[in-house]
Amino acid sequence: MSGNAGRVGAEPRTETDLDPHGEVTVDRVALVEELAGAEASAGHAASADVAEVALRYGDDALVLAQRLGDWITRAPELEEDVALGNIALDLLGHARSLLHYSGTHDGRSEDDLAYFRDEPDFRNAWLFEQPNGDFAHTIARQLFASTYLVELYRHLEQSTDATLAAIAAKASKEVDYHRDHAVQWTLRLAGGTDESRRRMIRAVEQTWPYVDELFRDDELAERLAAEGVAPLPSSLRPAFDVVIDQVFAEAELARPEGRLAFVVGGRGRQGGHTEHLGPMLAEMQVLARSHPGASW
Amino acid sequence: MSGNAGRVGAEPRTETDLDPHGEVTVDRVALVEELAGAEASAGHAASADVAEVALRYGDDALVLAQRLGDWITRAPELEEDVALGNIALDLLGHARSLLHYSGTHDGRSEDDLAYFRDEPDFRNAWLFEQPNGDFAHTIARQLFASTYLVELYRHLEQSTDATLAAIAAKASKEVDYHRDHAVQWTLRLAGGTDESRRRMIRAVEQTWPYVDELFRDDELAERLAAEGVAPLPSSLRPAFDVVIDQVFAEAELARPEGRLAFVVGGRGRQGGHTEHLGPMLAEMQVLARSHPGASW
Repeated sequence: MSGNAGRVGAEPRTETDLDPHGEVTVDRVALVEELAGAEASAGHAASADVAEVALRYGDDALVLAQRLGDWITRAPELEEDVALGNIALDLLGHARSLLHYSGTHDGRSEDDLAYFRDEPDFRNAWLFEQPNGDFAHTIARQLFASTYLVELYRHLEQSTDATLAAIAAKASKEVDYHRDHAVQWTLRLAGGTDESRRRMIRAVEQTWPYVDELFRDDELAERLAAEGVAPLPSSLRPAFDVVIDQVFAEAELARPEGRLAFVVGGRGRQGGHTEHLGPMLAEMQVLARSHPGASW
Repeated sequence: MSGNAGRVGAEPRTETDLDPHGEVTVDRVALVEELAGAEASAGHAASADVAEVALRYGDDALVLAQRLGDWITRAPELEEDVALGNIALDLLGHARSLLHYSGTHDGRSEDDLAYFRDEPDFRNAWLFEQPNGDFAHTIARQLFASTYLVELYRHLEQSTDATLAAIAAKASKEVDYHRDHAVQWTLRLAGGTDESRRRMIRAVEQTWPYVDELFRDDELAERLAAEGVAPLPSSLRPAFDVVIDQVFAEAELARPEGRLAFVVGGRGRQGGHTEHLGPMLAEMQVLARSHPGASW
């Protein structure tokens, strides 16, 4: 850990910890550097199972980061541009750490994984790839995503895999802020004008069907949970529901009933995606792919 | 100044100062908060001339921030995504401070100025509104823009206007990093593959014609220079040329001769713009304008 990272990380949480532009931003860099160093010294590569789950987590973060990046200078307030931009960069930091670690399994770099995989190889859940929609849709997506991520990283901090635990410990502080941000906006929109409330209700209803997939178990998840590497997704659901129900109650929003009835739920973890991921990846990968192996 | 901002700002420059994710990011927030506080206590509004020049500087930063934000997750490397994203957020911080101060003249907020002015009211120079092009175009634009901004803010730190001087003092450190970043990429692309060199040469040639406008004086500039408020644009040119010539020499690039012969130079300072600004503003302003006065 560098002196700078240590100085920040070692300090007790202060009010500035909740600021999206301060401590968490410094942590982001410290994380990437620290992990690069830790892995270099430890020299251990991720197992196949760990590489796969790191890919799931990393793709969730990467895809959401790209969506949020599109809000820079397009939000309803300049202050909000900066906030969403910082959240995007936090998530990009998580994605880099997770993809880097995943790639140690078979020698692929974070850039290989980000830019040279095709759509069926992406492992993000459907929630994360949904379009920005209007601002309320983005906030609803943020509310569900960050509430899930808070629970995920809180448990992952206890992982028997030291690298995942270190990534989670750092990311935890950042997604805590992301959740606070989403909750505040949810309350503000739901309690604002008739129009903003109408939009927030619509956004919650349209985004809710993508929540179930986050908590679905499969064989990989069961193996990793048995080894203490990663929490079982379904085990995170009760805490998620408690938080969301509190927010809904305060915002006077009804909990939607909708599910993805038209298909058997999301199947992003197996590489099945909605029509929204492809165009997004095309944009993201065009530069790196147009000059593979070149010095840029 | 908050305790957090003081801690960072008071420290000597270290190697981490060159890191786009660390010190400069913290400074960004401190700046906005500090200035808000300073202005509240001082209670002085910008004069008409100062408001106009702050608008020029602020629009340059705002427009460039939006361009760079589009690179998030679309750069050739994830590390670069993060770097360009951080540069965009730095610039957005400068824009907020400058537009906020400009607005004190007639009671408009930074959001009023960003979202509710039309194209002819924007005062940015043409360089800043040029499209991203390929990555080399973005780097060429960054090289010229940041080299200009380094000289501008270095002089503006001595402004007789205390608010402009404070904004410049903080922004100086950040644009120093932006320039380092652009120089490194210019050298890397010019000295990389045949293809990257060809693209860098093309980008420099196509971007160069927009440089002259940055250094053009007018009556406003002359009044402000006489009062010691802001440097005369033309006075910044020699130092700009020294730096650029050094970079060109090291990169083995010829200095282009092109000028904007087809029109009488750029006229962004008077509200004349290229065809590129309009579509960009439309994207930037659509949300705020679709719900003016709403709580989002």
